[in-house]
Amino acid sequence: MAQGIVRLRAGICAAASAVGKKESEGPLGAFFDITDPTDRYDQKTWEASESEMQRRALALAIKRAEKKPTDVDILFAGDLLNQCVASAYGLLEYGIPYCGIYGACSTSAEGLLLASMAVTGGCAEWAAVVTSSHYCAAERQYRTPLEYGAQRSPTAQWTVTGAGAFIVGGDTGGKCVRVSRGAVGIPRDSGVTDTTNMGGAMAGAAADTLLRFFRETGESPSAYDRIVTGDLGYEGGAILCDLMNGAGIPIRDRYADCGQLIYDREKQDVHAGGSGCGCAAVTLAGYLLPRLQKRIDRRILFLPTGAMMSPDSVKQGRTIPAVAHLVELEG
Amino acid sequence: MAQGIVRLRAGICAAASAVGKKESEGPLGAFFDITDPTDRYDQKTWEASESEMQRRALALAIKRAEKKPTDVDILFAGDLLNQCVASAYGLLEYGIPYCGIYGACSTSAEGLLLASMAVTGGCAEWAAVVTSSHYCAAERQYRTPLEYGAQRSPTAQWTVTGAGAFIVGGDTGGKCVRVSRGAVGIPRDSGVTDTTNMGGAMAGAAADTLLRFFRETGESPSAYDRIVTGDLGYEGGAILCDLMNGAGIPIRDRYADCGQLIYDREKQDVHAGGSGCGCAAVTLAGYLLPRLQKRIDRRILFLPTGAMMSPDSVKQGRTIPAVAHLVELEG
Repeated sequence: MAQGIVRLRAGICAAASAVGKKESEGPLGAFFDITDPTDRYDQKTWEASESEMQRRALALAIKRAEKKPTDVDILFAGDLLNQCVASAYGLLEYGIPYCGIYGACSTSAEGLLLASMAVTGGCAEWAAVVTSSHYCAAERQYRTPLEYGAQRSPTAQWTVTGAGAFIVGGDTGGKCVRVSRGAVGIPRDSGVTDTTNMGGAMAGAAADTLLRFFRETGESPSAYDRIVTGDLGYEGGAILCDLMNGAGIPIRDRYADCGQLIYDREKQDVHAGGSGCGCAAVTLAGYLLPRLQKRIDRRILFLPTGAMMSPDSVKQGRTIPAVAHLVELEG
Repeated sequence: MAQGIVRLRAGICAAASAVGKKESEGPLGAFFDITDPTDRYDQKTWEASESEMQRRALALAIKRAEKKPTDVDILFAGDLLNQCVASAYGLLEYGIPYCGIYGACSTSAEGLLLASMAVTGGCAEWAAVVTSSHYCAAERQYRTPLEYGAQRSPTAQWTVTGAGAFIVGGDTGGKCVRVSRGAVGIPRDSGVTDTTNMGGAMAGAAADTLLRFFRETGESPSAYDRIVTGDLGYEGGAILCDLMNGAGIPIRDRYADCGQLIYDREKQDVHAGGSGCGCAAVTLAGYLLPRLQKRIDRRILFLPTGAMMSPDSVKQGRTIPAVAHLVELEG
């Protein structure tokens, strides 16, 4: 296969999601498994709350797969916090071999690709993936503490408070959703320096991965019920559809974005939509996978995107490179 | 195989290292490929210098493997900077499918395991691994800017300025060093909260991974010429040897640590030794791999360790969990 395009023999056999108040009140609220109206999850810091969401989501996913933590050979996990501490602390008690990953908001797809590769190659019988984000922890790390009451720009997105967990195995029968192919994203720099317009920074990477995948596999958008990005939001989603139109491969009639699906744009004041590692993860776990299991959708492309800058790199005048990883899912 | 213990069919077929002034003046100085006595690598910020070391190390490794960037199917890279930006910016120009990884100072081994797994499973023909750290960038992010002139504790370690790059393929013949087995580390919390004693925080994780590997494979230390940790330094290295003695599997007669090897303890004022993602990476690339290629060593265990905390998690009173990934290398 071509560079970064992988054939996989794996399946997502169980999943679970934990979210905060705003997510539970959105259009997908009823689909999420665990919610806490305080967003605190019984913890003293927002960072610890994020860890606890990961812990609870993984516990439920393992239970649904009818497994024990000792059955999971490798755990792939990551988040947006410096040094990925939400994952490091949240998953400590499980005692599962652990690979930390960082793909910004594309982390859920990176984890699913690596878990599926481990299973495909016989390096793991069962692998798990957990990713998360927390609005309050992300705001104070990336922008300003909430107490400052900073004004948000129209293109700004709202970091999802949520954690999604997935159990991946080689058994693709029964209720497992098949992971049949994937594309590891190539980082692309669109020259954007505006940290309040992540969708704009990431849309080019999404188009790049999609076009590579279609070119190398010979597939076209009509082969898929939906093409779902992770958190391009309204701004980035529109740019992606324009870029695909420009490339002669329109996707608008089957395009969706987790950052658009998860909140009610009119009622929830989220400006350009949802974002964060948790956005794509909980939308996949709670909404997209059950649709594939029930055969409402037969085949989708799941394509989370990540912006790879840090607050420091932006202050140093660097542009915002982005990456998009693609996972082909079949019900 | 048992949880996290993997059989691999891969080889490290080329490697390269880039380091700073202090590393070039140490006992291994002559073994490193690229040095810059200013530590700046022609960049305006320390963070950009770290990125540039990664870029140059990967260029040389690809050249030595007689490959082009388009031959590399997947690139695994990571570093210590927030959001792993040294890797994100340093490797952008290559246009290689990219998986960001985070294992703190164990990142080089995590990358080698994932690259070897990708090759073993047929998901990549060639994979690359790059990791780095930079003393000046790490000090201001983790502790204080150098200009403050903070006093260092006796157990403190010196972050290596360096980047190591590796090209991994399925061809294990010729000059390739075989990657035959590995162990994905389980995060362990020794209860240490002192950020100036990382060796102490990480030694328990190293012992845990070593004991798991010996138990599950039936191997013993005598099967290896050397057992080399990544950056436990003098403090952590002594604790690991004590822990292994206590478990009835002494390793001291064949134990080495990259953080002890890389600096001259008497002359270079590094207190407890070297550390950082770059420490194990450049020592493997410049010193350990050539010894295996020349059959000075036949078989070693390479076991970098990582401390998974962030400056924020420590301020919030959390202990310092650690992880150690093991790679079995054969000349």
